[in-house]
Amino acid sequence: MTTKKRVGLVGATGIAGQQFIAALEGHPWFTLARVAASERSAGKTLKDALTDGAGALRWYADGQLPAAAAGLTLEPAEELGTDDLSLVFSAVESGPATKLEPLYAQRLPVISAASAFRDAPDVPLILPQVNPAHLDLVRVQQRNRKTRGFILPIPNCTTTGLAVALKPLADRFGVRQVAMTSMQAVSGAGRSPGVAALDVIDNLVPFVPNEEEKVARETGKILGRLAAESIAPHPLRVSCTCTRVGVLDGHTEAVFASLERPAQLSELREALASYANAEAGGLPSAPRQWIEVHDDPYRPQPRLDREAGGGMTTSVGRLRLDPTFENGVKFVVLSHNTKMGAARGAILLAELCVSKGLIG
Amino acid sequence: MTTKKRVGLVGATGIAGQQFIAALEGHPWFTLARVAASERSAGKTLKDALTDGAGALRWYADGQLPAAAAGLTLEPAEELGTDDLSLVFSAVESGPATKLEPLYAQRLPVISAASAFRDAPDVPLILPQVNPAHLDLVRVQQRNRKTRGFILPIPNCTTTGLAVALKPLADRFGVRQVAMTSMQAVSGAGRSPGVAALDVIDNLVPFVPNEEEKVARETGKILGRLAAESIAPHPLRVSCTCTRVGVLDGHTEAVFASLERPAQLSELREALASYANAEAGGLPSAPRQWIEVHDDPYRPQPRLDREAGGGMTTSVGRLRLDPTFENGVKFVVLSHNTKMGAARGAILLAELCVSKGLIG
Amino acid sequence: MTTKKRVGLVGATGIAGQQFIAALEGHPWFTLARVAASERSAGKTLKDALTDGAGALRWYADGQLPAAAAGLTLEPAEELGTDDLSLVFSAVESGPATKLEPLYAQRLPVISAASAFRDAPDVPLILPQVNPAHLDLVRVQQRNRKTRGFILPIPNCTTTGLAVALKPLADRFGVRQVAMTSMQAVSGAGRSPGVAALDVIDNLVPFVPNEEEKVARETGKILGRLAAESIAPHPLRVSCTCTRVGVLDGHTEAVFASLERPAQLSELREALASYANAEAGGLPSAPRQWIEVHDDPYRPQPRLDREAGGGMTTSVGRLRLDPTFENGVKFVVLSHNTKMGAARGAILLAELCVSKGLIG
Amino acid sequence: MTTKKRVGLVGATGIAGQQFIAALEGHPWFTLARVAASERSAGKTLKDALTDGAGALRWYADGQLPAAAAGLTLEPAEELGTDDLSLVFSAVESGPATKLEPLYAQRLPVISAASAFRDAPDVPLILPQVNPAHLDLVRVQQRNRKTRGFILPIPNCTTTGLAVALKPLADRFGVRQVAMTSMQAVSGAGRSPGVAALDVIDNLVPFVPNEEEKVARETGKILGRLAAESIAPHPLRVSCTCTRVGVLDGHTEAVFASLERPAQLSELREALASYANAEAGGLPSAPRQWIEVHDDPYRPQPRLDREAGGGMTTSVGRLRLDPTFENGVKFVVLSHNTKMGAARGAILLAELCVSKGLIG
Repeated sequence: MTTKKRVGLVGATGIAGQQFIAALEGHPWFTLARVAASERSAGKTLKDALTDGAGALRWYADGQLPAAAAGLTLEPAEELGTDDLSLVFSAVESGPATKLEPLYAQRLPVISAASAFRDAPDVPLILPQVNPAHLDLVRVQQRNRKTRGFILPIPNCTTTGLAVALKPLADRFGVRQVAMTSMQAVSGAGRSPGVAALDVIDNLVPFVPNEEEKVARETGKILGRLAAESIAPHPLRVSCTCTRVGVLDGHTEAVFASLERPAQLSELREALASYANAEAGGLPSAPRQWIEVHDDPYRPQPRLDREAGGGMTTSVGRLRLDPTFENGVKFVVLSHNTKMGAARGAILLAELCVSKGLIG
Repeated sequence: MTTKKRVGLVGATGIAGQQFIAALEGHPWFTLARVAASERSAGKTLKDALTDGAGALRWYADGQLPAAAAGLTLEPAEELGTDDLSLVFSAVESGPATKLEPLYAQRLPVISAASAFRDAPDVPLILPQVNPAHLDLVRVQQRNRKTRGFILPIPNCTTTGLAVALKPLADRFGVRQVAMTSMQAVSGAGRSPGVAALDVIDNLVPFVPNEEEKVARETGKILGRLAAESIAPHPLRVSCTCTRVGVLDGHTEAVFASLERPAQLSELREALASYANAEAGGLPSAPRQWIEVHDDPYRPQPRLDREAGGGMTTSVGRLRLDPTFENGVKFVVLSHNTKMGAARGAILLAELCVSKGLIG
Repeated sequence: MTTKKRVGLVGATGIAGQQFIAALEGHPWFTLARVAASERSAGKTLKDALTDGAGALRWYADGQLPAAAAGLTLEPAEELGTDDLSLVFSAVESGPATKLEPLYAQRLPVISAASAFRDAPDVPLILPQVNPAHLDLVRVQQRNRKTRGFILPIPNCTTTGLAVALKPLADRFGVRQVAMTSMQAVSGAGRSPGVAALDVIDNLVPFVPNEEEKVARETGKILGRLAAESIAPHPLRVSCTCTRVGVLDGHTEAVFASLERPAQLSELREALASYANAEAGGLPSAPRQWIEVHDDPYRPQPRLDREAGGGMTTSVGRLRLDPTFENGVKFVVLSHNTKMGAARGAILLAELCVSKGLIG
Repeated sequence: MTTKKRVGLVGATGIAGQQFIAALEGHPWFTLARVAASERSAGKTLKDALTDGAGALRWYADGQLPAAAAGLTLEPAEELGTDDLSLVFSAVESGPATKLEPLYAQRLPVISAASAFRDAPDVPLILPQVNPAHLDLVRVQQRNRKTRGFILPIPNCTTTGLAVALKPLADRFGVRQVAMTSMQAVSGAGRSPGVAALDVIDNLVPFVPNEEEKVARETGKILGRLAAESIAPHPLRVSCTCTRVGVLDGHTEAVFASLERPAQLSELREALASYANAEAGGLPSAPRQWIEVHDDPYRPQPRLDREAGGGMTTSVGRLRLDPTFENGVKFVVLSHNTKMGAARGAILLAELCVSKGLIG
């Protein structure tokens, strides 16, 4: 790629937006050219908008605020200039996304971390390492909506690790039923207000609003089959209990599953550890391994393993046969919720679109 | 009861032993009359044994070291005087328990927090609010072993909450299968060394050695049926993933269950909330409610709810039907691991023995 | 006291207000008769106002929401009925306090946890166990302001522990200079938004806005001398660095001090441990000991010691002579920020007013 | 440097030793050629020695166990082959160091993280960015002890940040007195047993044994003056209170200081921010800046700032004049206790020795 593609970012001042900025820094294919935010911040440079009344920079993502991004002037989200952009990343909340994303998609591709369009029939829900073929649904979406661009959301960060771990099992042995308990990191809730310290010091919270329904629905869609005009969900049954624990980053999930066909433990291990995907494997953000299997029963641990593969590798451990389910297996999955499960996952999806010729 | 029964405590200097001392303070039926520990501490007063080289008292249980207990002289465990005692509480590790508990049981009842004899066929595993009738197996044990006393262990602290919550469901609807993920408090591992801070700050550990097998086996035994010479385990299938999180006290468990018969949500709720047990209900350590059902989806939380009923009430929340299992239900259970799940649970069991005439 | 005095509470729905409600439950002298809050909540019962959209009760103080309080109807703060009340407790933020407290004080005493009037010359800043004699300034305030009631704020929760510990030293040896570093609990910042979990997991924050200035100013005023029309501040120099750590309750402070006169360690210990105050000693909320001195160098610890004396005892440990200061001494203080440092401290102050005949 | 110098490491299996192994990986001047440990591990490869009974690798330092190190065979510490080595790094406890370090020093330089010889008159205590000239004392040591090598310990990790921050102030304005309160990370105590989770969840511990004396003594020695046969300590008075908080890495210290001469805030800031050292500046482990000054009052924070300069930069914030001390200044220092304060600091010191021709 001789010149980098210019990309825009809406929601640039929030914590999710900051993670996009950090993840785009030094990207080989993309350069952040325009940033947008709410009316309140529009007209300021990104640096000024992130600087509080006391002169302190409110930067919460990895590393330092990149100098090039710091100097960009925030445009009002509704008026973001898109003529010189190849795509827009969306890091806004679901509410504004409902309005802004279709607006941008009239003209160019929108890769979004928001949940607004995940359930729309003509919108695929893609993890590049799991279901890249669903990208073909974009053509249907463009025809339906008469747009030059399109909307591509990434899944919920709690869905991501589960779907990645289930994929090789579904391919080789079939998956019939999943019962999952998540222990989710606080960074998933952002900062304003985010999770209160009072809730996770010497404590955990056994509920994350709306999360369980999302995981069940999204897992079926990701593992589903591309039909003519939509995705036919995978028939597996998914049930979840989602909890919040005092961990900064990295969602841990304890999974019980019932497979369609019997499998030996070594076959299950091998299916997970050797999982590869031809279309996603060569992308710039792809890790060396999509799934790392741990034999040490004390792993994966969020602090020790979340950064595997630059936060893009899904870690699986405690793999055991489970005789209490028909063709049962149980294991623990760990996925980085703000990397593979958010900004870096969205960038990986944009890379897939480029490699498939969907982004000009 | 006109005069209190004199009780002994072996393993008095450990953290589990300290919890017995705290829980026995002011008990209406029992008075701590003798304490025993390893050779190293024998001959010292309890207070001296708990005082470190720098003169600081290493007391880790609730409140202050009770004055009466402080002055007791530690006897060597093998030579604990039992003539003037009505029973012995055992707070030693499984290794020493294997040797010491049969020694004491030749002469008097032993109520134990150790796991050494939980799986023996002639040893019942009793939660007074769940299976008090299993106490009859003690007669078999005494006959088998030709002892005047007997050994009664309490279950593992992770089993306790699960078994209490399953009991009313098993009674009314039958329970066929359980898949449980625990998020266990650090106090369950004691202090020396206990759980390292490095393992639970910004982290969790997805493995607690031996715990999963214990919970599966013990749950079946507790919910089982008293046969002639042993307990016939309940045929339910139990599968667990046990994890350790940065919570001080209170084991939280996310449970998925399949029942024998269909149930409406209101029936399930009512079965849990109204659960009572005639034999255990009037005991001094019995809480007002054995099970508290929370309708607030954010509850139970370990810090907010572990002390319910003085740490003796099991809290259940997030009760939902689960269509992914046959007659499925899912919920979250919280039980205090060092109160109902340890010393206070053992004292409750001793109270049951007294009320049934098994302790003279 | 034959009948209890009826008291009002403004700011009843906030976390500080809830702590007043919990602390007033079962109080021997006071009964909570009226509650007030902002327009938004006015007209609802307290219980309804604390119940969120999902039907969950947002109660964050100790124990359960008392039934009697639950049924009280919230009045708009500006129109709180005061005719049948003996005093009003104020648990609002400093902004609304500036307006509301003088309004109420026209008619009746106001005991406030807000900082609005702490620095006013005719307003004393009283810790009953430290400077009860400053209460006489109330007469000046009433004359100045032509009010039947008066305003009495309690100090900042970080000042409280320091001032209590310094008082016996100031009395016996004189205090010339203090350098204090606080490690403050998250509960001091409330819940909305309060301290974010992201800020105190594997972290601490070396700054608490405005806190250092308050502690310096308030300590001088509390230890000061009652002059004709105001308090002449104690001439001691106070310097602070205030930090926030991942502790739920209990502010820990490391103090270096230079005394006016030399003292032996045993004299310092004795001055602290025997500290008593005739006027405050018999009040219902007074603990058995105002100051508990720990000889164990590992104490005080916030979790182990904050509840001493029902959260009203100040714990001092690590008492050492410090040869690097002239007549130097150093120690660690722990004070419960939401009990002695907030609601219960305000109630203690109200009790002092009653005992001195200032509340009819 | 054409070929790398071969170095040995004693105490290779402990957590401190692992940090040396991680820090030496890819080092431009040194290659880890020999490792030693206690008798129990001798004869095993490092990898085998770190693998527990369940087959899990107990590696606690950054990244993965380097392959080259993994295959090294552990030699018994007393018999470590030194003929082909240029120096030995010592990561053992103080006890074994007392015996082993003089043994090695007979033949070659020993750079040690242990405290055993820090107070010996002929042993300098060097931070390369602070007092490299003290290295000349090594000649005295060699003459005294008739050794070809020498022993060079690094300071205690709590001393390090303080000494670095004081150095530019001492140089420019003189330092007369320091009162410091530390909030130390748990990693400083290692893993076996290390700090118990029970001690730092919702808690802090106001005491770190022996730490306060070490910091006072070592700070004076580091800032002292090289005399004929020893170091004449700097006459500044240092007083500390050392506490342990629930932070993984990074010691935070709140410092109050009295200077010899008055200084303006801007001069103090400039002295710190521009601090450079000609001898240490070009070393491979030297960061771009020895001291980073933060103007954001919420910084430095351990989690956000400890990795500055690869863990080698000392962060200073909250810089304020302090009128309560003569020529007073106060600030907060943060230093990475297991990088600059341990293995990487020791390697920096070895680099200094090489650059000064002391390591052949």
